[in-house]
Amino acid sequence: MRQDHLISAANLSRESIEAVLDRAAAIDADPAAYRQRHAGAVLALCFFEPSTRTKMSFDTAMKRLGGTTVDMGTVESSSVKKGETLADTVRVVEGYADAIVLRHPSEGAAKMASEFVDVPLVNAGDGAGQHPSQTLLDLYTIRERAGLDDLSVGIMGDLKYGRTVHSLAHALTNFDVRQHFISPESLRLPRNVRFDLHESGAQVREHTDLDAVLPELDVLYVTRIQRERFPDENEYHAIAGEYRIDEETLDAARDDLSVMHPLPRVDEIAPEVDDTEYARYFEQAHNGVPVRMALLDELLTQAEAER
Amino acid sequence: MRQDHLISAANLSRESIEAVLDRAAAIDADPAAYRQRHAGAVLALCFFEPSTRTKMSFDTAMKRLGGTTVDMGTVESSSVKKGETLADTVRVVEGYADAIVLRHPSEGAAKMASEFVDVPLVNAGDGAGQHPSQTLLDLYTIRERAGLDDLSVGIMGDLKYGRTVHSLAHALTNFDVRQHFISPESLRLPRNVRFDLHESGAQVREHTDLDAVLPELDVLYVTRIQRERFPDENEYHAIAGEYRIDEETLDAARDDLSVMHPLPRVDEIAPEVDDTEYARYFEQAHNGVPVRMALLDELLTQAEAER
Amino acid sequence: MRQDHLISAANLSRESIEAVLDRAAAIDADPAAYRQRHAGAVLALCFFEPSTRTKMSFDTAMKRLGGTTVDMGTVESSSVKKGETLADTVRVVEGYADAIVLRHPSEGAAKMASEFVDVPLVNAGDGAGQHPSQTLLDLYTIRERAGLDDLSVGIMGDLKYGRTVHSLAHALTNFDVRQHFISPESLRLPRNVRFDLHESGAQVREHTDLDAVLPELDVLYVTRIQRERFPDENEYHAIAGEYRIDEETLDAARDDLSVMHPLPRVDEIAPEVDDTEYARYFEQAHNGVPVRMALLDELLTQAEAER
Repeated sequence: MRQDHLISAANLSRESIEAVLDRAAAIDADPAAYRQRHAGAVLALCFFEPSTRTKMSFDTAMKRLGGTTVDMGTVESSSVKKGETLADTVRVVEGYADAIVLRHPSEGAAKMASEFVDVPLVNAGDGAGQHPSQTLLDLYTIRERAGLDDLSVGIMGDLKYGRTVHSLAHALTNFDVRQHFISPESLRLPRNVRFDLHESGAQVREHTDLDAVLPELDVLYVTRIQRERFPDENEYHAIAGEYRIDEETLDAARDDLSVMHPLPRVDEIAPEVDDTEYARYFEQAHNGVPVRMALLDELLTQAEAER
Repeated sequence: MRQDHLISAANLSRESIEAVLDRAAAIDADPAAYRQRHAGAVLALCFFEPSTRTKMSFDTAMKRLGGTTVDMGTVESSSVKKGETLADTVRVVEGYADAIVLRHPSEGAAKMASEFVDVPLVNAGDGAGQHPSQTLLDLYTIRERAGLDDLSVGIMGDLKYGRTVHSLAHALTNFDVRQHFISPESLRLPRNVRFDLHESGAQVREHTDLDAVLPELDVLYVTRIQRERFPDENEYHAIAGEYRIDEETLDAARDDLSVMHPLPRVDEIAPEVDDTEYARYFEQAHNGVPVRMALLDELLTQAEAER
Repeated sequence: MRQDHLISAANLSRESIEAVLDRAAAIDADPAAYRQRHAGAVLALCFFEPSTRTKMSFDTAMKRLGGTTVDMGTVESSSVKKGETLADTVRVVEGYADAIVLRHPSEGAAKMASEFVDVPLVNAGDGAGQHPSQTLLDLYTIRERAGLDDLSVGIMGDLKYGRTVHSLAHALTNFDVRQHFISPESLRLPRNVRFDLHESGAQVREHTDLDAVLPELDVLYVTRIQRERFPDENEYHAIAGEYRIDEETLDAARDDLSVMHPLPRVDEIAPEVDDTEYARYFEQAHNGVPVRMALLDELLTQAEAER
């Protein structure tokens, strides 16, 4: 990785991605070897908006490395309410911790904050911006079963608003992956994302229907279609129903298809899929721990070396 | 205990109860011996409704065993708000933790959740259902002074709605205990609980007045009478006043009577009782730590052995 | 220190202050030596009102000593809402922890609570009352650059309502310090504080203007002027503007002036000051960790010795 902060997955090279995934695999293979690795180190959790899953996952990762965490608490209870700037908050917090995880509702917040602190800062989501550890755990999950080359990956659902989807699509351009985007017309991938993907030379196709492309997919990445995107309740139900996965849908899939989902899900994947070999989404969530352990390990080790 | 989860105190045998209490006593006698026992282990705290005391007590117990905890935070900040099911939440969380403590407002939630996870799950209260660690710490507190056989135990206050009371009453049927229930008519033990107690062969008597039975009690377990149970404020005050304990009330008690209360108390026990030998309620709260240490130790040790 | 609790800075002697600061300096010089010092110890964080900075700082301090913390959570989620008294809450909590940090909105709360518990209790702010660890970290920050004798210290801003200011002013009377108070007439130091300072023999002067006194100051301690103190918005802006510090203001200052601020700041100090040698406020916040480590170390070591 060779950098002090982790702000975006967009500027990660194939080599640096693979280095993180290899380290995560090593951790997964022998977690006990890492149990005391950062004993005494403190990670600050600064979540300016709630994100239980991401927070618990980083919290767990740090503790599995032998370290501890201190939590800024909610914005409602913090100095932010008294008018403190983000720059001031992180400069105070860096005096407490060896690294900072920052979640913020505003795009660009993590980059800005990182310029004020000397300890490593990890972006855990900044609005419509980046969430690099999510992308890395997605890649890790894909790679575990299917490798990362000569793959067909379908990404389905809300492709318009999904930060997770855009970030994953960008990251996949580092690998020999055919990308299929499946969505209703109204939730298509935004023009600028399509443009960037084409510029990068990625093999991209768009579909409004899963049926045609499903048989060739190695991975089907499903995302949540949010009710609030639709002015009309009936339209929402019609569309959500069309992009719902159940056992019958998957009859046409390859036996080794990975069905993924960033979770939480609502109705996008029927519970009956949970017990099939296709279902990888809980495993995917669990992979957040070794991947974030790998990230924290790299950043903390580097920071210690520089001191 | 020989079980993977702890959902209910109702199906605990006398032997399994005594095994937990013995282990708790061993921990109490030499806590330092347990200080590193589960170093590296992570306990997830999933509280779907607030319960400070129970949460702090489990949190402390895990840390006194050398382990750490990760906290799901409040429901307001969690994926639950996005429509995630309990089954999904616990399946994600089990990827982070070696055991889960679950508090939930719905009866049956813990049992249901436990069927979805492979790590041990402890029920820390599920609505009108069970709260087994509370029952075990009550038994532990009783046993410390008076043993658990040939006892007269009075349970007083709100016997109608109190989960704590029903669970304790059931558990006491494993022992040679005469149970006296003291309450206003309107807050009597529910018919089904009385039926179950009689079925089990327990020696049960009901009273509307403490005076007659107080002199023979070894234990008086007081519970809070909640204002919101009464449509009429004056009726509430009249009844609450009648079932209030103070030093004068206790003149008629045996010298070694244990006065217990699950806390928080409001007016049920006058502060002047706190400094008497009768008062066991703070000690009772403190006993939550060794009892929960014993429970966690047993479940974690067993889970490790099975891996 | 030789006391069981830390409630107020007012009754700390010069010797006991210096002992804490010396210990903090020793910790700062070699933090690794303290990393396991209180391994296994548990600190309870009882914050009856939010105070992110103070809480994170105590949390970090305990963890840097090898200990762990358990958090009572917010008042909204706690037994307090059910009508529990503070005395009951702390008597329950002392069964979980080896020490308690208490923050409470009511003056006198910490003193009262301390009378009910046997474990050491640290006051982390009680309304208009005391916040001794803040005072100690202020003194530590002053001493680091300028020592604590033959000093001119200016304290500026809201001197009427600021607990921090009153406490620091009292503490400085232990040393050979000339105190200059700079504020608008409406936010002057209260009569009783002025009286106490004069009684103690302190060298005190009041100013409405910074210019005259700035050149002789070794320390300028700036506090926030709160909008809500002014019925009139325009008056607020006029006054806040007059007591704002920027690079130009500081042209007249000595080169080794320390500009301090308890943070969070809003507009009192221009961001351009942050990169000057004057700025000590982030360092001041960071000093909360070694100072609180020193306090906790002293109290825990003493408590262990007495057991």
